[in-house]
This record gives sequence, C-alpha cells and structure tokens, in this order.
Amino acid sequence: MRKVVLYIAMSLDGYIADIDGKVHWLCGEDINNNYMDSYLKFINTVDTVVMGRTTYNQIVNELSPNNWVYNNLTSYVITNTPFKANSKIISTNENVCNLIQKLKKYSGKNIWICGGANIINQLIDKNLIDIYHISIIPTILGNGIKLFDKFSIERKLKLISNNSYNGIVDLVYEHR
Amino acid sequence: MRKVVLYIAMSLDGYIADIDGKVHWLCGEDINNNYMDSYLKFINTVDTVVMGRTTYNQIVNELSPNNWVYNNLTSYVITNTPFKANSKIISTNENVCNLIQKLKKYSGKNIWICGGANIINQLIDKNLIDIYHISIIPTILGNGIKLFDKFSIERKLKLISNNSYNGIVDLVYEHR
Repeated sequence: MRKVVLYIAMSLDGYIADIDGKVHWLCGEDINNNYMDSYLKFINTVDTVVMGRTTYNQIVNELSPNNWVYNNLTSYVITNTPFKANSKIISTNENVCNLIQKLKKYSGKNIWICGGANIINQLIDKNLIDIYHISIIPTILGNGIKLFDKFSIERKLKLISNNSYNGIVDLVYEHR
Repeated sequence: MRKVVLYIAMSLDGYIADIDGKVHWLCGEDINNNYMDSYLKFINTVDTVVMGRTTYNQIVNELSPNNWVYNNLTSYVITNTPFKANSKIISTNENVCNLIQKLKKYSGKNIWICGGANIINQLIDKNLIDIYHISIIPTILGNGIKLFDKFSIERKLKLISNNSYNGIVDLVYEHR
C-alpha cells in the first residue's frame, strides 16, 4: 500500500518556520550550495502532496509566484474556504485525516505531507504518518513555529537511513 | 583552550526527560543493546562534568545509588543549597555561567555539561557552549522537559560528525 510521508525540514531546536512564518533560514552551511539530490530522489517516490492553506499561500506568494512548483504531483490544499485553481490543485475543506485515509485506498506512489504544523500534528495524533523524513537544519533558531505538538502517546520509531550534506542531516524513520 | 561540551540525548521532538522527569525511554531500538562506544570515546575527552541539583539527585537516587558514576571526573553540582559530598564532587551556588568562564581559564580536558535544561539554557543564552553533541533517540515522546528554551538570537551551527548506532543518531556541531 502507498505510504504517507512527512518530509520536512526543522532546526535542531524543532522549528519549521521562524516567528514571522519565514523559511529563509532553511538552508545548509554554505548558502550558495543548492544540493538537490536528496529532494530529487524523494520527489520521485510521491505523486500526491497535501498541504494547508498557509503553506499553499507561502508557495504561491513567496517561493514561486509564476508557476506551480509541484506540477508533476496532484496537490491537495486543506482550507476552510476552498478556491478554484487548476486541475492539478484540489482545494478542500475535508478533514485532513479523512482525506488521507481515502487517498491511501487508491493505488499510486506515496503521499507527501509537506505542512504546516496544524495538519502534520492532526496526522501524527491519529498515527497516520508512515514515514518521518526530517531534515535537520544546522541551526538553533531560538523561536518560531514548532514541528511537533504535545501528544499523550509516545511513538517509538525505527531509523531507516541517516545521510548528511552541506551540514543538513536527513533522518528517515518508520514506526517500530 | 579546553572546550565546553553539551553532551545529551533528546527525543526527535526535543525532550530530555518525560513529564515525570524520568529517562527510562533514553535507549535505542533494541533495549538490550547497551552499545557504549560513543559514550566511552566521549568520556575520555573530558575531565570535568557540570550538572544541576535535579540531575545530581537523579543519578544518586535512581541511576547509581551505591557509587558515584563519574569518579574519574571532577563533578560540579550547581545548587541553591550546597552540601558536603566527597572530594570529587564540588557543590556550589555560583552562577553556572561564571563557573564555566572560570573553569575555561584552567588547563585541562574538555568540560561536560550534562544537564538539566535550566543550566544548559543559561549557557546557550550566553553563548558558552562550544560543542553541541546531541544524541537523537528514535522516538516522538509527546511531552516532557524540553532541551531548548526560546532564544532571541539564532545560533548557526556547523556539523562536525554524524553517526548512528541502534537507531540513535549522534549529531556533533560547533558554531559557524
């Protein structure tokens, strides 16, 4: 069965965005080194990406205003106010856990959960993440938006791989 | 000059102890695998260990009631109520930042900061940690005592090494 993959970068102290929601600090030690092998390898394993409205807005307003960055994927945007985009972008106010459980029943490549924290933590809480692929950025950011909320249940993990490039460490886990 | 090393384990979600202050979950995937190479290699690089009173109490009451575990090191215990122990254990109510700045002026091996969070964060805040050696335990603990407080200044790091054993990932950083 296709898997649900949380693929995201966080600072050593656990932040995915700074206090203003910005992500300019999400880079390795050499900011001119745009090593993409890890991302390109990953993106070939998925055909679907799921994100919240804030993440969507950040992509279209800041990261890539002129063309949709995930044109090779089917993109789902979870939002209270669905909007019309194009045939590759589906916006919905469906609960993200229900959507993921539905998408898992279809055949296909893996499903990428790319953010934000609200969506991610709903999925962790319901144990709906199969693979945690966390890129540790070499910085103690100090403040911002945390990746992990608090949970009442511990989730024991199994390390699948551990690679580093340009000071960034890619940790990949499954459930034990 | 000797360096100040924060050597500590945390869960993937950033906790160093659970909500009751317990650390029984600080282990790798196979709980019967007591791989110690990383610790033994580290302990040979230090001759001094600095800790708070809670960490000290945890060691003598829970981890090793019969003999002091760091007999080969000079141990400093930061506490509001200094006590008499033995010649290898010095308890003091001195501010931990002042103590560290004083100890750095003496010759010797590196200085280990082993916890707890209060002492660690005072030292991070004053930029007095030279090496961050963080062992990532393969678990999302969910709740407990956080390693990192919030800070107003970002600390950019440089990855020195990255090793894994039994699902635990040892990340070692210096300042950039």
